[in-house]
Amino acid sequence: MPEPYDDANVFAKILRGELPCHKVYEDEAALALMDIMPRADGHVLLIPKARARNIFDVDVAALAALMGPLQKISRAVRTALAADGVTIQQFNEPAGGQIVFHLHFHILPRWADVGLRPHTGEMEKPEVLEGFRRRIVAALESG
Amino acid sequence: MPEPYDDANVFAKILRGELPCHKVYEDEAALALMDIMPRADGHVLLIPKARARNIFDVDVAALAALMGPLQKISRAVRTALAADGVTIQQFNEPAGGQIVFHLHFHILPRWADVGLRPHTGEMEKPEVLEGFRRRIVAALESG
Repeated sequence: MPEPYDDANVFAKILRGELPCHKVYEDEAALALMDIMPRADGHVLLIPKARARNIFDVDVAALAALMGPLQKISRAVRTALAADGVTIQQFNEPAGGQIVFHLHFHILPRWADVGLRPHTGEMEKPEVLEGFRRRIVAALESG
Repeated sequence: MPEPYDDANVFAKILRGELPCHKVYEDEAALALMDIMPRADGHVLLIPKARARNIFDVDVAALAALMGPLQKISRAVRTALAADGVTIQQFNEPAGGQIVFHLHFHILPRWADVGLRPHTGEMEKPEVLEGFRRRIVAALESG
């Protein structure tokens, strides 16, 4: 039995325009934004616009529609952050690492010999996030 | 510039039938198999049949074709292993955590208060993998 979708989750509020975000990308099916508690410089979240708690209940077409953006954003963060690699994570239910209950992919730029930062719950400064966002958007726009 | 695809990687050999695997699922575009160095009981790998090094060079249609199997297998491992959640990981280039250079998703059953085991490089006993494989296949077949 899948858990029900909770419309009060923070990504639902962002999708409804009730909360702001550092937007990286948007199309008819997807939104990408800077993670405000980044585990790496340039840490981006990719979410479907469709209501979905996680992998267990998401509509497969809505999930598949994220794959083009997932690739584009992975390439863009690599370029924008001069990363050596990218780690993609997708967490389902609290035991799986999920904290916000709207399906999301973490897109994490990685560099040789640099570990992911721990999840401390501390928020990054908006101007820092904005700097990374601009570089990633520029990389997306230049292809 | 994407790195070239290396046809000698272990997943390419499995896809060509040159090496065996503990097969969990197969369709025209995807193969899923037990990870022989599991970081959790029931750790499954999902790969495209298409030649793809990782997220940077994969054909988007081949990537999207994995999303149905990704959901089915996530549900099946949750049922088969009585898991509380599932963690999905996809690593790109060595700095991103990639070791085998054919695109793959890790599907990791998770339980409350149980961490992932470290990647030691030690192989699990075939009979243990086979036991988990059978339970996951049975869960896939029962829906």
